[in-house]
Amino acid sequence: MLFKVEMKVNIPHDMPADVIADIKAREKAYAQELQTQGKWRHLWRVAGSYANVSIFDVADNAELQDLISALPLFPYMDISVAPLCRHPSSIHLDDR
Amino acid sequence: MLFKVEMKVNIPHDMPADVIADIKAREKAYAQELQTQGKWRHLWRVAGSYANVSIFDVADNAELQDLISALPLFPYMDISVAPLCRHPSSIHLDDR
Amino acid sequence: MLFKVEMKVNIPHDMPADVIADIKAREKAYAQELQTQGKWRHLWRVAGSYANVSIFDVADNAELQDLISALPLFPYMDISVAPLCRHPSSIHLDDR
Amino acid sequence: MLFKVEMKVNIPHDMPADVIADIKAREKAYAQELQTQGKWRHLWRVAGSYANVSIFDVADNAELQDLISALPLFPYMDISVAPLCRHPSSIHLDDR
Amino acid sequence: MLFKVEMKVNIPHDMPADVIADIKAREKAYAQELQTQGKWRHLWRVAGSYANVSIFDVADNAELQDLISALPLFPYMDISVAPLCRHPSSIHLDDR
Amino acid sequence: MLFKVEMKVNIPHDMPADVIADIKAREKAYAQELQTQGKWRHLWRVAGSYANVSIFDVADNAELQDLISALPLFPYMDISVAPLCRHPSSIHLDDR
Amino acid sequence: MLFKVEMKVNIPHDMPADVIADIKAREKAYAQELQTQGKWRHLWRVAGSYANVSIFDVADNAELQDLISALPLFPYMDISVAPLCRHPSSIHLDDR
Amino acid sequence: MLFKVEMKVNIPHDMPADVIADIKAREKAYAQELQTQGKWRHLWRVAGSYANVSIFDVADNAELQDLISALPLFPYMDISVAPLCRHPSSIHLDDR
Amino acid sequence: MLFKVEMKVNIPHDMPADVIADIKAREKAYAQELQTQGKWRHLWRVAGSYANVSIFDVADNAELQDLISALPLFPYMDISVAPLCRHPSSIHLDDR
Amino acid sequence: MLFKVEMKVNIPHDMPADVIADIKAREKAYAQELQTQGKWRHLWRVAGSYANVSIFDVADNAELQDLISALPLFPYMDISVAPLCRHPSSIHLDDR
Repeated sequence: MLFKVEMKVNIPHDMPADVIADIKAREKAYAQELQTQGKWRHLWRVAGSYANVSIFDVADNAELQDLISALPLFPYMDISVAPLCRHPSSIHLDDR
Repeated sequence: MLFKVEMKVNIPHDMPADVIADIKAREKAYAQELQTQGKWRHLWRVAGSYANVSIFDVADNAELQDLISALPLFPYMDISVAPLCRHPSSIHLDDR
Repeated sequence: MLFKVEMKVNIPHDMPADVIADIKAREKAYAQELQTQGKWRHLWRVAGSYANVSIFDVADNAELQDLISALPLFPYMDISVAPLCRHPSSIHLDDR
Repeated sequence: MLFKVEMKVNIPHDMPADVIADIKAREKAYAQELQTQGKWRHLWRVAGSYANVSIFDVADNAELQDLISALPLFPYMDISVAPLCRHPSSIHLDDR
Repeated sequence: MLFKVEMKVNIPHDMPADVIADIKAREKAYAQELQTQGKWRHLWRVAGSYANVSIFDVADNAELQDLISALPLFPYMDISVAPLCRHPSSIHLDDR
Repeated sequence: MLFKVEMKVNIPHDMPADVIADIKAREKAYAQELQTQGKWRHLWRVAGSYANVSIFDVADNAELQDLISALPLFPYMDISVAPLCRHPSSIHLDDR
Repeated sequence: MLFKVEMKVNIPHDMPADVIADIKAREKAYAQELQTQGKWRHLWRVAGSYANVSIFDVADNAELQDLISALPLFPYMDISVAPLCRHPSSIHLDDR
Repeated sequence: MLFKVEMKVNIPHDMPADVIADIKAREKAYAQELQTQGKWRHLWRVAGSYANVSIFDVADNAELQDLISALPLFPYMDISVAPLCRHPSSIHLDDR
Repeated sequence: MLFKVEMKVNIPHDMPADVIADIKAREKAYAQELQTQGKWRHLWRVAGSYANVSIFDVADNAELQDLISALPLFPYMDISVAPLCRHPSSIHLDDR
Repeated sequence: MLFKVEMKVNIPHDMPADVIADIKAREKAYAQELQTQGKWRHLWRVAGSYANVSIFDVADNAELQDLISALPLFPYMDISVAPLCRHPSSIHLDDR
């Protein structure tokens, strides 16, 4: 089941540089693990911003919550979610 | 070059049913032609709405405008566009 | 899988009274059928408005779209959807 | 009398971890006590967020204020309230 | 139990003058009846607008819905509702 | 002359508890003094929030500014003001 | 007593040209009469729009409502009002 | 050339009192100097707020920027600007 | 003197095709005349929309109003204006 | 390929003056280098603000992201991006 997830990162300006670096390193590793597992199907940067557009492929709403709330950057992001499903005009087999 | 495009359809309630049916048929044919050409890379329905989330793959901004403004439903949609690019944490080769 | 769905009804003021009455009658029958099936788990009126707050219980996003887009009032409503899941502090067994 | 209450948690990033842990523990205990009393009828997590959708069952507006303003997380939440009542199409006896 | 209700009137510009006049006359009669009954405790015009600020005194949410949805202008108004209760600093006995 | 005033309190989370307590005590004393003088005609809590809805009765705009800007919580509140006047359908003698 | 009033004109596109012309002629005459009386102290066009910024000088809120609601274009304008008073740094004697 | 300028002051709550006092004193002196020069034509307080509505009279956009960006409170204000010009219905000679 | 002007076109769906064609033809001729005169310095389409971003070069606010309000599409556009001036970091001689 | 980019600067009020001065100096040098290269085609100040309107000329979305995310002020700005293309009514050869 697919969800569009948009994440906008807002790191507090007074957070120490090494703390930020650690969070970002863990975020990257975690994001790549979820991509490897097929849970994080697409991940794009929005040009001109510190934000991304993502497509998640999860079993249900609960798994979506588990994956997103475990993001190391979760406390520092504005996140919006839209449930997706197959469009009657789509010809792409995997646009479910 | 990829763009996220979101389209929300607002058909005037007093438009004749056959006119609507004709526009929708042409919209579907056109959407499927663009998908076949690889220009309209993904097309999802947003669950619970008359709206879609799409990923377009175009040569440049001008082609994006040409493709979108030719949509039969173009005059009846609220459309928002976000330019995408590769995310440094993506491992998907084609998330460009 | 649960979703909160909020619907605000906006019937065009120049729609004939009998057309409105027919749509409302079909809406009510359909809403009650979905409730009987257990798909539409809760349905409340928001006091002071022509709007409702609902909880849907569906198999997946696709079923949510099928059920909502088939509402007779669908073309005349502003609808917003939020995916729900179990809250770690809930003690209600069925707040999934 | 039922109210839909939505709560979005915004914990200041510079609050000490033990203070946060204490507040959260008290919040959970309080939330479960209100659920046991039947005052907090439903409590769902909104998937992909640090937010909940709740249904409160209270005697009147004053009790709603008493219960919500006593939440340990009250100073750190954006809260919105909508008064609910029976929907004429509901068939659920307790959707009052 | 008190509620603040704000109503903004938007009469369609193509509605016949006699229909408008009839609706307004019935609205006025109904508003005055509710005031006489003590249900509509205050009714003020917002200066420079076709809008009002009102205080309703009702038994519960359901009665609020019954009274407001029966307003002859109900289909032509944007309405917002806020539940009120006693403020700990109020000295007015009837600011409940 | 009446004004509806809405105040939403946002106390900075890092303000010392004794400073907050002092401000709140002065706010309460001042609010009660203005009520005693008849300047602050109504004061209600909005249920489920740290906010109030108030009706002020002042000689003119300048007095409204003097009274509100002297509130001890003034620097920590979002405040909105709407000028009121008699509604042609009001039957309450003092809804001026 | 001064108020800033902003008016944005939205004339329905299907209103007959002679009806519009008549409304505009009456609007202009009325606006000039109020200016002559000193009630409408300033009237500026906002460059690039069909909107104005105005300063009204009235006895009280009720007079503001009387003057504005009598504007021939009143049903076709979005209007916002802000009560003004003397600024402690003003040196202009009549900026009351 | 006239501009409407609206300024809303947001002084950080943790700024030392003497720093604030100094900024405000310089702001007042500067505002009065610009008024004496005829550049700051009107300055009103918005009743119930820490905000003002102003009319500037400048040679061009560049001068507007020079004057506003030199305000001692400039870093602590939300500022909005609207270019003004003569309204065809104005009878005030200096409403240019 | 430069202004950024953004225009979003909203043509009513029930306007006859020949009326629209006539308005658009006159709009194009007028836009090109203003460009030839150097008043309309830049005109770009926003990709994926029926909207433009423009730079106007005018003597003052009044000329901006004259030029924009004479656009044949003026009654059917949402228009926003921002006054521009030289940026201290610009090296382009004509970015005034 | 052209993009309109709008940047609004929000420097935290508690950042040391020398840190700010250093960031601004690097920002200016970088902005001028990109202008020299022809990547930053136009740069205007929005009068009355600490904001700019810019036109970027880049190879693709990825280059836009590279250039903008490298701005020394990037963490302290609200940035919005709109993809541009040739307008059918433009007569300026380089309004691509």
